[in-house]
Amino acid sequence: MPAAAINYDEASAEVRAVFDDIKTSRNVPDVNNFWKYLARDPALLKRTWESVKEVMAPGALDPLTKEMIYLAVSVTNGCGYCIASHTAAARKAGMTDAMFGEVMAVTGMANETNRLANGYRVPIDKMFE
Amino acid sequence: MPAAAINYDEASAEVRAVFDDIKTSRNVPDVNNFWKYLARDPALLKRTWESVKEVMAPGALDPLTKEMIYLAVSVTNGCGYCIASHTAAARKAGMTDAMFGEVMAVTGMANETNRLANGYRVPIDKMFE
Amino acid sequence: MPAAAINYDEASAEVRAVFDDIKTSRNVPDVNNFWKYLARDPALLKRTWESVKEVMAPGALDPLTKEMIYLAVSVTNGCGYCIASHTAAARKAGMTDAMFGEVMAVTGMANETNRLANGYRVPIDKMFE
Amino acid sequence: MPAAAINYDEASAEVRAVFDDIKTSRNVPDVNNFWKYLARDPALLKRTWESVKEVMAPGALDPLTKEMIYLAVSVTNGCGYCIASHTAAARKAGMTDAMFGEVMAVTGMANETNRLANGYRVPIDKMFE
Amino acid sequence: MPAAAINYDEASAEVRAVFDDIKTSRNVPDVNNFWKYLARDPALLKRTWESVKEVMAPGALDPLTKEMIYLAVSVTNGCGYCIASHTAAARKAGMTDAMFGEVMAVTGMANETNRLANGYRVPIDKMFE
Amino acid sequence: MPAAAINYDEASAEVRAVFDDIKTSRNVPDVNNFWKYLARDPALLKRTWESVKEVMAPGALDPLTKEMIYLAVSVTNGCGYCIASHTAAARKAGMTDAMFGEVMAVTGMANETNRLANGYRVPIDKMFE
Repeated sequence: MPAAAINYDEASAEVRAVFDDIKTSRNVPDVNNFWKYLARDPALLKRTWESVKEVMAPGALDPLTKEMIYLAVSVTNGCGYCIASHTAAARKAGMTDAMFGEVMAVTGMANETNRLANGYRVPIDKMFE
Repeated sequence: MPAAAINYDEASAEVRAVFDDIKTSRNVPDVNNFWKYLARDPALLKRTWESVKEVMAPGALDPLTKEMIYLAVSVTNGCGYCIASHTAAARKAGMTDAMFGEVMAVTGMANETNRLANGYRVPIDKMFE
Repeated sequence: MPAAAINYDEASAEVRAVFDDIKTSRNVPDVNNFWKYLARDPALLKRTWESVKEVMAPGALDPLTKEMIYLAVSVTNGCGYCIASHTAAARKAGMTDAMFGEVMAVTGMANETNRLANGYRVPIDKMFE
Repeated sequence: MPAAAINYDEASAEVRAVFDDIKTSRNVPDVNNFWKYLARDPALLKRTWESVKEVMAPGALDPLTKEMIYLAVSVTNGCGYCIASHTAAARKAGMTDAMFGEVMAVTGMANETNRLANGYRVPIDKMFE
Repeated sequence: MPAAAINYDEASAEVRAVFDDIKTSRNVPDVNNFWKYLARDPALLKRTWESVKEVMAPGALDPLTKEMIYLAVSVTNGCGYCIASHTAAARKAGMTDAMFGEVMAVTGMANETNRLANGYRVPIDKMFE
Repeated sequence: MPAAAINYDEASAEVRAVFDDIKTSRNVPDVNNFWKYLARDPALLKRTWESVKEVMAPGALDPLTKEMIYLAVSVTNGCGYCIASHTAAARKAGMTDAMFGEVMAVTGMANETNRLANGYRVPIDKMFE
């Protein structure tokens, strides 16, 4: 059992404090599995949550745009858990079916043209340097 | 010389038609290297341009959001040419320094948490299925 | 049925010789699925086992360090089978919970900063060349 | 100029504080380019440095082992800057030529067998679940 | 339910036209899940099918060679669905067990030596430029 | 200088034996940089060359097909050195401009549809299992 989940009842005070902050910040009744697994390493849990919270907060980009970028990266990397959880998060933030379709289309196209640029060994244009 | 550029003067009528459409659609005096290299294969050039034109057109998502997603994928894949050209394209579409910083921060974070989810072998929550 | 397992009873003498060497070298009662599937191609099975045996033997690095590096690569690539089998192998070689947490933390961080370096297009410092 | 370096002289007090901490912690006369580029986004600079400092500190694993894992991930991802800088960092932490050779050998082998496991569609053994 | 399948009975005329063309072109009684899921976005479905049809048609390379290249890429990316479907497609196009074994061996080897070239930072030979 | 080239004159007898075999097998006056860099680790050099020689020999697939698969994987991984050297090797083995174009088109398409399958979370069809 290299990495089982830690539930709220069995969590240390340190872990509970992070879980509580996630639940409050996201207004959810329980944290999702990702956090329960990271809880095996309280320092990692705390650092990861604080970074995610800071990075995903509204700023120059709104939370929906950020979630769609997160999803596009997860799809590119083929991370099953992340695709499922960030599709849900993006939908919660307002992603419609049409938006989802366009995120997929752009992600697919970028993955294709990235390889065409590699294979044709295209040198960077002066104006892009 | 596995893949040299084809310039407008030396291009066939078929290739020129695509180059002209790119120049008009984007309002640029010349096409960038990517298209000059793909021109080696006129069918690939035409199909790729038509797909990119359709995918990147305003729809449920605006062009700036699409360019930032394109950039996030290119950064994840480490495609040097694509990072340079799509950073330029995103800036032209309105990406500010602050937006660029947030695209990078989200892309970096997603690449990190994708691996944490892999390594901790986190099972997908029922609610995400 | 593109690639089913070959068990010891049904294996050729050539395949059994490799299976026997794996069982003896690792002191295990049976080989794991990876080898049973590769056994479809006896030359691949033999070459892969001999390379793995040579590469993973104690040398300038001890077997535990090697297994943790193997795990970090497998997590980066998102190979489910490899993450499961090399987590087990690393634990057998002495990886504690704390060590596992640190392998994950370093792997996650490297995947993040790799993309920040890509996206910010950081030129290599003279002293690193 | 999408992402130029920020040098110490032109840096804000906030950025200088991070630069000073890097220089002190690592006992180096100047920070390397990675940090000068991230300095465009002071919040990202601070968060990334604090995370790297925490993650790479001696713990259950020594700094050399951590640097070699960092290098293996960077090689897998093909990040040129990261390969150069973490090869240097690992050497500074004590990586010999023989150790470097073994890190490369394990990284190469893991990348090969990850794909063999994918392609042969090997199911996870009960004992690894 | 972020992306459920659309079956023929419930499909629009636009989607049915694509499904019919796939069934005729491939001489199959029904389309496979990939197309049923893409059908959520009729424009993406149509564009993707037309591109795949054009790219995979016999040309300078025969369909079997193309399917084996498709499989090698899918194995490298670790896309479970694509590995399953393109192994089947390659077998239908004539891939024998021996050919499958050699595709895997080459794919594995390329993934290994790609990383050795990265890690040893091998400069491109003049004659390859 | 973490990984400089070793030339024939300065090579040990062990390394020269491998270099000689490469030169004879490929009928070339000198080995390319990849081998000169691996020569830092004679055991790795020997094992890698013997594996490459065995894997790339004519078998159920001809050398040209194998080189095109090698190229497709290298393009997918974005390995600059490998793209350059295997484009040259494929050309030497008979790859025409038209074949090169089709390898690129299939590689690009596979990279796109791999992500569409990931993002739409397409379940594997019964007939492909």
